[in-house]
Amino acid sequence: MECVLRPCRAEDCAEVMRMIKELAEFEKLPDQVQISDQVLREDGFANDPFYRCLVAEVPPEHRSRDGHTVVGYGLYFFTYSTWKGRNIYMEDLYVMPEFRGKGIGKKLMSKIAEIGVENRCTQLKFVVLDWNRTAIDFYQGQGAVDLTTAEGWHFFHIEGDALEQLAQGHLGH
Amino acid sequence: MECVLRPCRAEDCAEVMRMIKELAEFEKLPDQVQISDQVLREDGFANDPFYRCLVAEVPPEHRSRDGHTVVGYGLYFFTYSTWKGRNIYMEDLYVMPEFRGKGIGKKLMSKIAEIGVENRCTQLKFVVLDWNRTAIDFYQGQGAVDLTTAEGWHFFHIEGDALEQLAQGHLGH
Repeated sequence: MECVLRPCRAEDCAEVMRMIKELAEFEKLPDQVQISDQVLREDGFANDPFYRCLVAEVPPEHRSRDGHTVVGYGLYFFTYSTWKGRNIYMEDLYVMPEFRGKGIGKKLMSKIAEIGVENRCTQLKFVVLDWNRTAIDFYQGQGAVDLTTAEGWHFFHIEGDALEQLAQGHLGH
Repeated sequence: MECVLRPCRAEDCAEVMRMIKELAEFEKLPDQVQISDQVLREDGFANDPFYRCLVAEVPPEHRSRDGHTVVGYGLYFFTYSTWKGRNIYMEDLYVMPEFRGKGIGKKLMSKIAEIGVENRCTQLKFVVLDWNRTAIDFYQGQGAVDLTTAEGWHFFHIEGDALEQLAQGHLGH
C-alpha cells in the first residue's frame, strides 16, 4: 500500500492528538493524557518547538474504516548524553491497528534514525512498558538494548505540587 | 559556605568534563564516556544548543584540595510528553564528594525545577541506577516517583552499527 511519510503540520495536530489518545488506551493509561491538540500545536509550531513529528499518510482510497488518512506518527526530539553526545529521543511510535503489518512503523522508525544520524546523534533512545512484548520484540529486532535490565537504569519524575515546592526552594528531607 | 549557581559558559566545559568523568567513575561505568570537552563546547554553545548547564562555584578561598572552584553541575534540556506536554529533563546532577552535605545538590535541582516551571513544564524527569540508594532516597525526599517500578517503563537505546543500519533502511526481522 502506498503510504507517505511527511513532517507533521500544525493542521495535523488534531489527528495526531486522536492517535496519542489511541496509543494511551492501548498502553492502559488513558487517564494520563492531559494535553489538547491546541497545546500540541502551540508547543510544536512556535519559534522554539519542543518536539518534532512525522506522520504516515495513505491516499483517500485507502483511508481507515472511520475515514482517517493520517494513520501513524512518530514524535521525537533531540536530547543529550554527557557520555556519548547528541541523542535523538523517540517519544511515541504509533500505527493504527488496521494498518499494522505493512512496514509503516519500521519506515517511521528508520526515518527518525536517519534524522538522528544526519544530526550526528550517536543514540536513538525511547522507553517501553515491560508487558508490551510485541513492541519489545520489534525494537530488539532492530538492535535495541534494554538499559533498565542491562545496567539498572530506572526512570523517575517529579510533578504537580512536589515540582512546585522544589521550584520554590521548599526542599524535602 | 558561600556557593554561587550560574549558567555554564563555554570556558567551563573542561571543568564540567572533569566532573562528568568523576560521576561516571562513581556510577561504575567510566568506559562509557566517549566525548571530550571540545564536543561538549560545540554541542552546548552553538546556535541550537543540545543542552543547558548550571555550575556551582565556590570562592577561591574555599577551593577543593586539588584546586577547583567549580565543584558541581546540573545538566538539563527540554523534552516533551504527549500526555502532559513540556518536560524538563535532568541528565546529570553532581557535586564533588568533599562539597556534599552542604545543600549544593538541592540548590542545583531546585533551580532546574524553577527553570522548568518558568517554561511551563509539568514534569522534571531523570534516570537513576537502581543500586544508587543514596540518590534514590534523596530524589524520593523531593517527591520523585520511580516510574519503572510504578508503571513498568524500561529505558532502551539503539546505537553504533544497529543505528546506522536502521537509518539506512536495512531493517531487522
